[in-house]
Amino acid sequence: MSKIPVGLLGATGMVGQRFIQSLSDHPWFELEALTASEKSAGKRYEEAAKWYLYPPMPEEVKDIEVRPTEVEAVEDTEIVFSALPSSIAEEVEPKMAKAGKIVASNASSYRMDPDVPLMIPEINPDHLNLIEQQKENRGWDGAIVTNPNCTTIILLLALKPLIDEVGINRVFVSTMQALSGAGYGGVKSMEIEDNLIPYIPKEEWKTENEPLKILGKYEKGKIEKAEIDISASCNRVAVLDGHTESVFLELENEASPKSVERIMSEFKAEPQELNLPTAPIKPIIIEKEPDKPQPRSARHAGSVPGMAVAVGRVREDPVFENGIRFLISGNNAIRGAAGASVLNAELMKAKDLL
Amino acid sequence: MSKIPVGLLGATGMVGQRFIQSLSDHPWFELEALTASEKSAGKRYEEAAKWYLYPPMPEEVKDIEVRPTEVEAVEDTEIVFSALPSSIAEEVEPKMAKAGKIVASNASSYRMDPDVPLMIPEINPDHLNLIEQQKENRGWDGAIVTNPNCTTIILLLALKPLIDEVGINRVFVSTMQALSGAGYGGVKSMEIEDNLIPYIPKEEWKTENEPLKILGKYEKGKIEKAEIDISASCNRVAVLDGHTESVFLELENEASPKSVERIMSEFKAEPQELNLPTAPIKPIIIEKEPDKPQPRSARHAGSVPGMAVAVGRVREDPVFENGIRFLISGNNAIRGAAGASVLNAELMKAKDLL
Amino acid sequence: MSKIPVGLLGATGMVGQRFIQSLSDHPWFELEALTASEKSAGKRYEEAAKWYLYPPMPEEVKDIEVRPTEVEAVEDTEIVFSALPSSIAEEVEPKMAKAGKIVASNASSYRMDPDVPLMIPEINPDHLNLIEQQKENRGWDGAIVTNPNCTTIILLLALKPLIDEVGINRVFVSTMQALSGAGYGGVKSMEIEDNLIPYIPKEEWKTENEPLKILGKYEKGKIEKAEIDISASCNRVAVLDGHTESVFLELENEASPKSVERIMSEFKAEPQELNLPTAPIKPIIIEKEPDKPQPRSARHAGSVPGMAVAVGRVREDPVFENGIRFLISGNNAIRGAAGASVLNAELMKAKDLL
Amino acid sequence: MSKIPVGLLGATGMVGQRFIQSLSDHPWFELEALTASEKSAGKRYEEAAKWYLYPPMPEEVKDIEVRPTEVEAVEDTEIVFSALPSSIAEEVEPKMAKAGKIVASNASSYRMDPDVPLMIPEINPDHLNLIEQQKENRGWDGAIVTNPNCTTIILLLALKPLIDEVGINRVFVSTMQALSGAGYGGVKSMEIEDNLIPYIPKEEWKTENEPLKILGKYEKGKIEKAEIDISASCNRVAVLDGHTESVFLELENEASPKSVERIMSEFKAEPQELNLPTAPIKPIIIEKEPDKPQPRSARHAGSVPGMAVAVGRVREDPVFENGIRFLISGNNAIRGAAGASVLNAELMKAKDLL
Repeated sequence: MSKIPVGLLGATGMVGQRFIQSLSDHPWFELEALTASEKSAGKRYEEAAKWYLYPPMPEEVKDIEVRPTEVEAVEDTEIVFSALPSSIAEEVEPKMAKAGKIVASNASSYRMDPDVPLMIPEINPDHLNLIEQQKENRGWDGAIVTNPNCTTIILLLALKPLIDEVGINRVFVSTMQALSGAGYGGVKSMEIEDNLIPYIPKEEWKTENEPLKILGKYEKGKIEKAEIDISASCNRVAVLDGHTESVFLELENEASPKSVERIMSEFKAEPQELNLPTAPIKPIIIEKEPDKPQPRSARHAGSVPGMAVAVGRVREDPVFENGIRFLISGNNAIRGAAGASVLNAELMKAKDLL
Repeated sequence: MSKIPVGLLGATGMVGQRFIQSLSDHPWFELEALTASEKSAGKRYEEAAKWYLYPPMPEEVKDIEVRPTEVEAVEDTEIVFSALPSSIAEEVEPKMAKAGKIVASNASSYRMDPDVPLMIPEINPDHLNLIEQQKENRGWDGAIVTNPNCTTIILLLALKPLIDEVGINRVFVSTMQALSGAGYGGVKSMEIEDNLIPYIPKEEWKTENEPLKILGKYEKGKIEKAEIDISASCNRVAVLDGHTESVFLELENEASPKSVERIMSEFKAEPQELNLPTAPIKPIIIEKEPDKPQPRSARHAGSVPGMAVAVGRVREDPVFENGIRFLISGNNAIRGAAGASVLNAELMKAKDLL
Repeated sequence: MSKIPVGLLGATGMVGQRFIQSLSDHPWFELEALTASEKSAGKRYEEAAKWYLYPPMPEEVKDIEVRPTEVEAVEDTEIVFSALPSSIAEEVEPKMAKAGKIVASNASSYRMDPDVPLMIPEINPDHLNLIEQQKENRGWDGAIVTNPNCTTIILLLALKPLIDEVGINRVFVSTMQALSGAGYGGVKSMEIEDNLIPYIPKEEWKTENEPLKILGKYEKGKIEKAEIDISASCNRVAVLDGHTESVFLELENEASPKSVERIMSEFKAEPQELNLPTAPIKPIIIEKEPDKPQPRSARHAGSVPGMAVAVGRVREDPVFENGIRFLISGNNAIRGAAGASVLNAELMKAKDLL
Repeated sequence: MSKIPVGLLGATGMVGQRFIQSLSDHPWFELEALTASEKSAGKRYEEAAKWYLYPPMPEEVKDIEVRPTEVEAVEDTEIVFSALPSSIAEEVEPKMAKAGKIVASNASSYRMDPDVPLMIPEINPDHLNLIEQQKENRGWDGAIVTNPNCTTIILLLALKPLIDEVGINRVFVSTMQALSGAGYGGVKSMEIEDNLIPYIPKEEWKTENEPLKILGKYEKGKIEKAEIDISASCNRVAVLDGHTESVFLELENEASPKSVERIMSEFKAEPQELNLPTAPIKPIIIEKEPDKPQPRSARHAGSVPGMAVAVGRVREDPVFENGIRFLISGNNAIRGAAGASVLNAELMKAKDLL
């Protein structure tokens, strides 16, 4: 089988680099086009990008010539991954979709549009049905398919099996989020050294609202929003990668910490059944040590490192009648961003939607 | 007025040093005796203690000869402050009390004993009445008076005016606590660099249970515990000083964020009315900037630096009907430890209980 | 005596804020005018500046209306302190000098001009004689007087007494510099967390070349550059304030570590003799503990906190015949920047040059 | 070929864990015995060791039963790697050697003994000849073979090709060393947060003296020490892994920065020629970016990650006539410790000395 040629919009930034790591040596996809801003266009990728990550820049992308972020640049591709900042994504992504591309986007611009799938493959694979509706509504040959905000993904992945098996009424979540979530230059060292910042613009809104759509029911081209009450308080801490979330839940039905751990640990869903290349064998890893999960290790969680979330300290909650609380930690840049888009694309491919 | 001679048990450790800072140049108290372990006894304080804090060691303590932690060592004092670790405090403090000393203790050993006052002077000054009961029960000439755990103090100081004015039913709190709370050697750098630890032994229990006593009603030599449901999740982050707490409240009665801010900002209590030397003019400072409170500045909050707590981001909570959420940050080592004991002693002095 | 009205150019940035701290409650100077960029002009200082420092913004500056950085803005002042970035200083400072102001500048723009004094008051007070020459050369009523780069000041302050008493031939210095030296937004948290950066643009050139002028001999309106060989390697580390420098010296004459400590410890110069308000009683503090100086404490060194440098680990060097090595640590933002300019102005005032 | 059974002394500590990573899946060696202190003996490795590293604990060691650190424990092995602290190594290693084992030790206890090889395989492979002498001197069937201190290895690896091609007279080195070099609990977070420590016990002595032996000439069972003057100043900074060294050199003969880079980049030695399994293809990686090497990336340097050192900022030195200066950064825990011992063992195996 020959690989599917894919493009990457916004290839030089930190999220773009995470996409390159996820797509390098991918069994199904082959990076054909890398785009960036005008000032990078025309340069070899190695010259255009200051590489921030480990492992070092993959050899095979070094010589790719960076193109401007335009429709022409991705003509020879079938899927286009978008690591664009939302202000640019807002303008560019519809053009790409109109030109027939499937845009697998990490940007927030169109996440909440009623006909745009907001996907976590383990949770709402059937929402891909919105693609048809979107094409019809907009007269496009392609479509935009999005993944949620990092904090939302990490939270919902852990909640999903509980929602299914015991039900969740109310969620309080206080986060401790990594620096990389703000982009390479997002947090100044003078701000965060010996300090923390108890505020991340728009993050709480996303964490409280994206789940209503993701957990919603697809019917006849529409998503009926779910009913779940979430209150989020989002904080930035001096950690490079890995968001940690302190979660308090009111369950619909009683469940002991042991059974919560079992339910989470056994959780598998469509990406696992389909054996998608970057789907972790277990989406949720239960940590047994009393002082885990910690982001420095949890950022690598899973059989595909960074694609699972780590859960620990599952314990009863003394306030709610059916209360449970625990900690989650997961890789915001992989499972929460680039890896999420790639898994979306894998799901589409497996369902013959490309 | 001549000053009251006081002793300090456990003077060389980090909490002991915070006591020395609080007591240096104190208008009412004079450091007469400093005690430490056997290996320090006999040395000048300057030789015995490796000074960790800024400002540098006060001149007047440098030449004080450190004594062993025994009753004889504090004979010439009226109050004895205890910065002892709880395992040692458990044994030593009763001896001191028996010998007629008022022991103002930061240790957790006797906090929950029914006849031992667990004090936050702004909240339960009348609990000092337990002193009589304690003396009677135990046949002591002196008594032990304690302050709560750092996390508890910072939380309750912010909650108290709301409890009084609108009522609080339920509290969820997720903390981000400073390194100094674990003692100078408590957290290894390899553990916390580029990381966080979502677990602090015994801290959640203290945060959930100490408030029931502190907020309880004193009657006839007893405290009737308060009814308030608290769920705490305690995390360690890479910050030197200053605990930050993310709080979600269910109020008994409706109150807007604005009115919550007003209620907190106007809060004053007995220490303020009595003009106690280290009582902050305002126990709660409302921060208006959207990204505050932050521990690097909040650790200095208040007219007496470190003795007030900073509250910010007061906002409605979308989950509870009368829900309010906000962040608090305060100095764990001052308001949450040494300064708390000193304020207790000031209150006792002002009430002629010394 | 009424105070001298002074202006501050670039008052809202981090260096500007350090100037405000140094000038607040100054016995000789009174802040009359604060200037900033167009977008801040017209606002109250409290609105215009996000305050980064501790202690909090002094009350007396909160209501001062920020002016644009123009000559008219400082009409009612005698001295103008400049916290401007060098690109702006280059244009603005000559205009101010032409208009008759003494500009006490921290910017690098004119430091190396032959007729501009580059001052460390303890080292080259006679270089103020260049002011006359500068006025004559340029036909100005005022003049520009500069202080060196932070790294240079901290280094030379420690070297000066050795130069005088035993002579220094060669200097190797490897630095570990604080984040604040790069400005509030200069170093990204993603760059420095769990990392260091072994490069600071232009810093090594300044550290090697500014001393030749500062240590030079003033004669007939000119500075004859000193002969001293310096090699610098400059590194950025995750420290908020306080540059630390690892120094290896070849002395002209033999001197034991003990005598080097004595020479440094006894060092006093004109600012000390003149009792300048912000001159530290001892410019060099010798630290005796084996693991000092450390920047977290050394940033406060001196009787005027932050105005002295701390030296420790003075020991023989096994490579040079008369070799000595030690560590220096000092406050880059105070002694190395704002405080340096203020001390320059105090010296000028004491010498009736204002 | 069946693999050689090996033992690991001190298997549960952080250095021990690095050994396990280096030896896991090793093509020549098979971990047969893991030893630790009495309290771990008898437990499965997974129970006995709190794993600190990434990747997670290799599956194949989890079930190995930890043995006490005694001769009997390693009976069925041919080589014994020692990750013991020097105080224990001092006693245990000779017993092992006497019992016929080759002890490949990272401990400092016997490094400077005249008949004990102190090896960097790229530099002094012929020093393995000392093994015969050692056996003879001591009447042992086995022998102790050591690797140097981490700082020494990283420094000498970079210096060796220059010594060979242009000669080096004098070396000044100021280090910025990682936390892991002090062991997992060696540096307290309160010590190093927003700080650095300009002192590491014994480190400077090792850095100045071990090279004289390593670079010495083997002749007739003896090492004649080399003549090279080194002055080291060692500092601890808040970096997890990777020591960075700021080096100033006086060369014997002139060499431009370009030629120094070329000489280093082309350097290969016996481990490369012998294709030893963990020998990096290039021991020295030249970094071209102006702000490199940085420890967060350099800790992975080399074709075998962590086994090469990264050198950057090679530039002329203005003080020495034939002066050159640069920065080196390398993995203290791999190339500087466990990996060094493993490479020593590989060299011995390749030379039929096992």
